Amino acid sequence: MSNVRALPLLDRSEAPAAAVVPCCPPLSERPFTAEEAERTARMFKALGDPVRLRLFSAVASHEGGEACVCDISDVGVSQPTVSHHLKKLKEAGLLTSERRGTWVYYRVEPSVLAAMGQLLAVR
Amino acid sequence: MSNVRALPLLDRSEAPAAAVVPCCPPLSERPFTAEEAERTARMFKALGDPVRLRLFSAVASHEGGEACVCDISDVGVSQPTVSHHLKKLKEAGLLTSERRGTWVYYRVEPSVLAAMGQLLAVR
Repeated sequence: MSNVRALPLLDRSEAPAAAVVPCCPPLSERPFTAEEAERTARMFKALGDPVRLRLFSAVASHEGGEACVCDISDVGVSQPTVSHHLKKLKEAGLLTSERRGTWVYYRVEPSVLAAMGQLLAVR
Repeated sequence: MSNVRALPLLDRSEAPAAAVVPCCPPLSERPFTAEEAERTARMFKALGDPVRLRLFSAVASHEGGEACVCDISDVGVSQPTVSHHLKKLKEAGLLTSERRGTWVYYRVEPSVLAAMGQLLAVR
């Protein structure tokens, strides 16, 4: 029936993360080109801030592998700052987000993490 | 004989890298504390610059796993800038260095890389 409002559980209204899945072989395989370095440095830079790293860890370790701002506001910064950093992590492709009603839920993108781990593989 | 000058092959006159071997469990195991995040973010930040990432990759992939500034100056920045970035990577614990005669040779610290890879392990 058209007057039944669906629960917004699968509302994917948030834009998906940019396609930043690493392009690149392990860092020790051959020297990176400028373009490879540009793409890859974005992800490392996103984790290179202590507050972002705590937030990322809070999302990654949260029950069910996802969290909203309401779940992870205990890192000593304001909620707008939390939202700002979560957005940065999303822009770097490390988190995905999904709006459900009032809140946006963030989830770690496992394929990107795995690819970053591969970059660090030692020859 | 005291008048025989040893070749400076093992001259460890460069200060060793600070003890920055990651302290910490995978990012997805539990929320990082502020102190853990401070220590770990330094390493990610060091790789979060495209020029540093190219230099790191150049050292990591160079024959024998080590390189001097003279080997890796083709990343489009001046040699002093190369030296500056190599120093930053060393301060973050990602490279070690050893002086041999005129040149300082840089080498990737494999244990730190492996530990960083572990941080990114997906639960």
